[in-house]
Amino acid sequence: MELTGELAGELAHLVGDDAVVTEGIAAYGADSTEGRGLRGRPQAVVLPSSAGAVARVVAWCYHHGVPMVPRGGGTGFAGGAVPTEDAVVVSLERLRRVRAFDPLMWRAHVEAGLTTGEVQRLARESGLDFPPNPGAAEQSQIGGNIATNAGGPRSFKYGATGDWVTGLEAVVAPGELITVGGPARRDVAGYDLRRLLIGSEGTLGIVTAAWLRLLPAPEARLPVVALHPDAASGCAALERVLGSGIRAASLEFLDEATIAIAGHSFPGDAAVAGFMTLAEADGSPEEVARMRSELAEALGEGATRVLSPTDTDQVARIVSWRDGVSLTVSAQRGGKLSEDVAVPLDRLAEAMAEVKAIAGRQRLETCAWGHAGDGIIHASFLVDRTNEAQLDRAHAAAADLFGLAIRLGGTVTGEHGIGLAKAGRLQEQWPARAVELHEQVKRVFDPKGLFNPGKKLARPSS
Amino acid sequence: MELTGELAGELAHLVGDDAVVTEGIAAYGADSTEGRGLRGRPQAVVLPSSAGAVARVVAWCYHHGVPMVPRGGGTGFAGGAVPTEDAVVVSLERLRRVRAFDPLMWRAHVEAGLTTGEVQRLARESGLDFPPNPGAAEQSQIGGNIATNAGGPRSFKYGATGDWVTGLEAVVAPGELITVGGPARRDVAGYDLRRLLIGSEGTLGIVTAAWLRLLPAPEARLPVVALHPDAASGCAALERVLGSGIRAASLEFLDEATIAIAGHSFPGDAAVAGFMTLAEADGSPEEVARMRSELAEALGEGATRVLSPTDTDQVARIVSWRDGVSLTVSAQRGGKLSEDVAVPLDRLAEAMAEVKAIAGRQRLETCAWGHAGDGIIHASFLVDRTNEAQLDRAHAAAADLFGLAIRLGGTVTGEHGIGLAKAGRLQEQWPARAVELHEQVKRVFDPKGLFNPGKKLARPSS
Repeated sequence: MELTGELAGELAHLVGDDAVVTEGIAAYGADSTEGRGLRGRPQAVVLPSSAGAVARVVAWCYHHGVPMVPRGGGTGFAGGAVPTEDAVVVSLERLRRVRAFDPLMWRAHVEAGLTTGEVQRLARESGLDFPPNPGAAEQSQIGGNIATNAGGPRSFKYGATGDWVTGLEAVVAPGELITVGGPARRDVAGYDLRRLLIGSEGTLGIVTAAWLRLLPAPEARLPVVALHPDAASGCAALERVLGSGIRAASLEFLDEATIAIAGHSFPGDAAVAGFMTLAEADGSPEEVARMRSELAEALGEGATRVLSPTDTDQVARIVSWRDGVSLTVSAQRGGKLSEDVAVPLDRLAEAMAEVKAIAGRQRLETCAWGHAGDGIIHASFLVDRTNEAQLDRAHAAAADLFGLAIRLGGTVTGEHGIGLAKAGRLQEQWPARAVELHEQVKRVFDPKGLFNPGKKLARPSS
Repeated sequence: MELTGELAGELAHLVGDDAVVTEGIAAYGADSTEGRGLRGRPQAVVLPSSAGAVARVVAWCYHHGVPMVPRGGGTGFAGGAVPTEDAVVVSLERLRRVRAFDPLMWRAHVEAGLTTGEVQRLARESGLDFPPNPGAAEQSQIGGNIATNAGGPRSFKYGATGDWVTGLEAVVAPGELITVGGPARRDVAGYDLRRLLIGSEGTLGIVTAAWLRLLPAPEARLPVVALHPDAASGCAALERVLGSGIRAASLEFLDEATIAIAGHSFPGDAAVAGFMTLAEADGSPEEVARMRSELAEALGEGATRVLSPTDTDQVARIVSWRDGVSLTVSAQRGGKLSEDVAVPLDRLAEAMAEVKAIAGRQRLETCAWGHAGDGIIHASFLVDRTNEAQLDRAHAAAADLFGLAIRLGGTVTGEHGIGLAKAGRLQEQWPARAVELHEQVKRVFDPKGLFNPGKKLARPSS
C-alpha cells in the first residue's frame, strides 16, 4: 500500500510534501526487536524538519484522534518504535541542528535527531566528552536515548543519558511545544517534568531538543580483562573491585556460554574460561596507570589469565571485540530472546546461577553478559525461531527471569525499557498504588492515549 | 494552646501517646525562614517512629481531610516546613534507623530522619563518601534533603541529593507506603516517580526512607582562593577554570559587598577585594596537587592575591570561614531578604551587575555569593525589618531578580525550592502548558490537596 488520500494530504499540508514518506514506508515498521518478531506497518510516516513542524503534526493528530509513534534511530531493544497500523510514525531524523555549542561552558543544545556518535564527536573535537555510550552510536539518536534514558557500560561511573540533560524541549498534548530546564545546571522550581519525560519512551510527549552537560574528556582510557574459572569466582572478583574502592569507568562481564560462542575471536589467544570480567580505567595518564594496576590486582586474584594491554591497537581490538559480542552471538546462534534485567551487584552470582537453572528447566541454552557495575544482565535464551514450542518455553523462561530480578531487589528492565516487549511487567515489580500513579501520570500527559499507544504499559492491556 | 481533645486522642491512638507533642509545639512552627517573617502554628505535631506509623497518620488525616506538613530538620530556606494552623506537622525525626549499610557495595538504606552529618559519617567510617553537602549537616535530615533535592557547593562535580538516590520509600495518598526503586543502580521500568518525589517538597507524598549510592572517599581535598579587583575579572577567572578543562569539586564566589562584611575574619590577612573565587580540588593526592596548581593558574591571572594552602589547619580555617559567611552577614547586618536564583555560568558577570542595578533602583544594599559552578547566586537585599517600606522595596527587588534569572536562561530557585517563600513564581518561568502539567501531577498524587498545602504552588493561590 502506498500512502494516498486524505491523511497524506493533511500531513503534507502541515509539514510539506517532501516530509511525508510515500515510498519505503515499511522501513519504519520495525526496530531492533524485529528479530523477536515485532513488526508493524504504520498508516503514514512524517519527517518534520523542525520542532514547530512536530508540534503541528501532533496538534493535528491529537485533534483527529490519530495515534503517533515517535521514532529515533530505531535501535531500541524493547519495541518502543514498532508502530500500530493506525499510527503516524513521527521520525525525528531531520531534527539535526546543533542549536548551540559552548565548549568553554561544557554544554550543547542539540536537536533530537543527531546521532549519539555526532554528539560524541562534537564534544570530542573540543576536548570534551559526552559520557553516555549506549551502543549503536552511528544509528541511535540523542532523542531516542533520552526517551529511553539509555545507559551502557560507562553508566557505572557516569550515569545514564538522563543524568546529562539539564533541559528538554518536547511536544506534549494537545500539540504544544514546551521547555523544562535549559542551560542552567541546577533548577528546583517545578516538579521534575524533565525527568518524567526522560525514559517515558515517547508515551508522554515527543522530545525535540535537549541541553546537554559535557565533561572535559579523560586523557586516557585502558581496559583490564580477566578470565576466571567460574561465575562465582568472577563475581567475587567484581565485588573486590568495589571493595577495593576502585572507581572504574565500566565493569563488565561475560558468562561461560558467551565466551564459548564469542571467545574464539578474542584478540590474540582465544579466550576459554568459565567467566570473563572487563573493566575500564579512565582519567589522567597517572590515574589510569594506577587504576590499571589496582584493577589487575583486584580482578586477578584466582584468575586464570589477566590482560591489561597498553598498546593502542590491542586496546582497540579488545574494545571492538566486546562491542561485537551481541552481534557475534546472534550471527552464530541464530534466534535469541534477550532480556535486560538488573539486580544489585552483590546478587549477580546468585542471579547467574538462577538464570542457568531457569534455562535448564525450560530445556534451553542460555548465555549472558552485561554491565556488572550496574548489575545489568543481558540474558539470552537461544531459540530456533521456527520452533514455536521452544519460543513459548523461552517466553516462560523470560517470565521467570523477571520474577528473579524482582525477588533479588532489581528490575525487569535495567536499560532497554518496557516498550512493547515487556508491556504489563511493571505491575509485577511495583506496588499497586505506584502502578496507579504511573497510569494516572500517563493520563495527565496524554488523556486521549495517542502518544505511542501500547508502550510502557504498567499492566497488560485488556 | 496546649493540644487537647479529639485530634490529640486520635493521633495518640495511631502512633502512641509519646509520639504526640503536647508541649513546645511552637518549635515546629517555623524553619530557617523565620528571619523573613514566616511562622505558623500547627494544630498538632506527631513524631511517628516508623514508616508504618507515618502511613497510619497520613491515612487518618487523608480520610478526615486534615492537612499535613512533613518536617525534616527545619533548615530549609523557602518556608517549606512552615505549617498552616489547621495542619498536623508530621516530623520525621524519629525515623532514624540505618536499615542496611553495605560499604563494599557503596550503598546504604537509611530512614528519612537521619541527619546529613550522620549519613556522611556512616560513609566516612568505611572509607566512603556521601557527596551532597548542602550545609547545616548536623540539623538537616536526609529526608528533607531529598524532598528539596538539596545541593550545595559540591553539586558542581557530584550533582545534588537526588543524584545519589536509587530508591525511595514514601507514603502517598490516601495513606499507602510505596517503594520505587531500591538497591539496584539502574531501573527504567516505570515513569520516574522517584525523581518526581525528589524535590517535590512534601507536596506529593512523605519520604520515609531511601537507598543511597555512595562513592569511595577522595583521598585528599584542597581549596584554592583568589582575590580579584572586580566582578568582571573574577567571573572571567571562573570561566577560565572550565575553559582549562579543570574538573573542580566546587567553584564558589563572593562579591565585593560580602567581602566587605565577612572579609575581616578571613583566616590570616583580612580579605579586601572586589570579588573572591574559591575552588576545591579533590581526588588522589597526585591529582589534587596537579589540580591545585591548575586552579591557582586559572584563577590567578589578574588576581591580586592567590592562596592555595596545604597546611591542614589553614585549610580547615578557610573551609569553616566560607561555611560561616551567611551567618556572618546575618549577624553583622541584621535583616536580609535572600534569594537563590541560578543562571548559566557565562551569564554570572551580567547577573552580578544587574543585581547591583536592581538594588540601586530600590535604594537597598545588596551582597551576593554562591555556587558559581552551578550558576547559583545567593543574592541578599539588606533590610531593617522594622521598616515596612524598605521591606516592600526588597520584595520588589526580589521580583526583579527572578525576572532577571529567567531572562538569562536560569531559574527562580537553584537550590532552596519554591516552598512558601516563592509560591506562584513557577508560572513566570515555565510555559503555561508545563504549569498545567505541574498542577495536574499534584492533583494525581494529592487529589484532596492535603500534602503540605500552599507549598510549591506554580501560580499564586487565589
